[in-house]
Amino acid sequence: MKLLASLTLAAVVSTLSVPAMAQFQKPEDAIKYRKAALTVMAAHFGRIGAMASDKAPFDAKIAAENAAIVEDMSKLPWAGFGAGTDKGETRAKPEIWTDGAKFKKGSEDMMAAVSALNAAAKTGNLDNLKKAFGESAKTCKACHDAFRKE
Amino acid sequence: MKLLASLTLAAVVSTLSVPAMAQFQKPEDAIKYRKAALTVMAAHFGRIGAMASDKAPFDAKIAAENAAIVEDMSKLPWAGFGAGTDKGETRAKPEIWTDGAKFKKGSEDMMAAVSALNAAAKTGNLDNLKKAFGESAKTCKACHDAFRKE
Repeated sequence: MKLLASLTLAAVVSTLSVPAMAQFQKPEDAIKYRKAALTVMAAHFGRIGAMASDKAPFDAKIAAENAAIVEDMSKLPWAGFGAGTDKGETRAKPEIWTDGAKFKKGSEDMMAAVSALNAAAKTGNLDNLKKAFGESAKTCKACHDAFRKE
Repeated sequence: MKLLASLTLAAVVSTLSVPAMAQFQKPEDAIKYRKAALTVMAAHFGRIGAMASDKAPFDAKIAAENAAIVEDMSKLPWAGFGAGTDKGETRAKPEIWTDGAKFKKGSEDMMAAVSALNAAAKTGNLDNLKKAFGESAKTCKACHDAFRKE
């Protein structure tokens, strides 16, 4: 039964990781992709942050446009973290693959937080935006602290 | 009148370029951003290309998901081509800034073509997808030929 359980687990893991990897020809393509998706997300998140921290004038329309892009982008990077993408031009820590459940939970927390940020931005209220931005930023930091090398 | 025309033109150019640049702290941030947006777009466009060229099995749902992302991404890179972003880690040719009207037309052609690609993907018909992919790829190539160094 132990062997069967191992084989089943291997099949599940394989099923989970193959589709993601199959999207990229080489591991370095996956790494480049996930970094690019996070770069685009960070740029738009940063524009909301400038308003949320009173460093830029609050413009509800611009905030909402950026928050919508952040939510769209938040779904993309994860496909780039498939098996075999732990080496190369990356600051990804091995824990992403050795503690996949925690990493997955972190990604889900972030996606939920920026979805709430998008909803908050649509209200056009700066206080709502500030609160939701702070909650989102916490989820970024949590994953960076746990899963990204300095 | 010539002076007035010049001043008016300067004001217009300034109005056009300031908002784009104001989104980025430094020119290198804008360059990194536009490359990242194009990298993400290319990855998803490539997955449609694999189906359109019969190198990957056609899956209407996956094609539609990727085409929607391509259309979303197609709107983003242009803000990263503001004044002062012609130097640095970039293969952008000076013509982007000396022939801005042609570059803008190229960007609009691409956005229209990938919007049509997204509509074609939604039909679930491989022939529609192949035709729209081909039209989109032409617009990529036109800009790369004219505005990107080898």
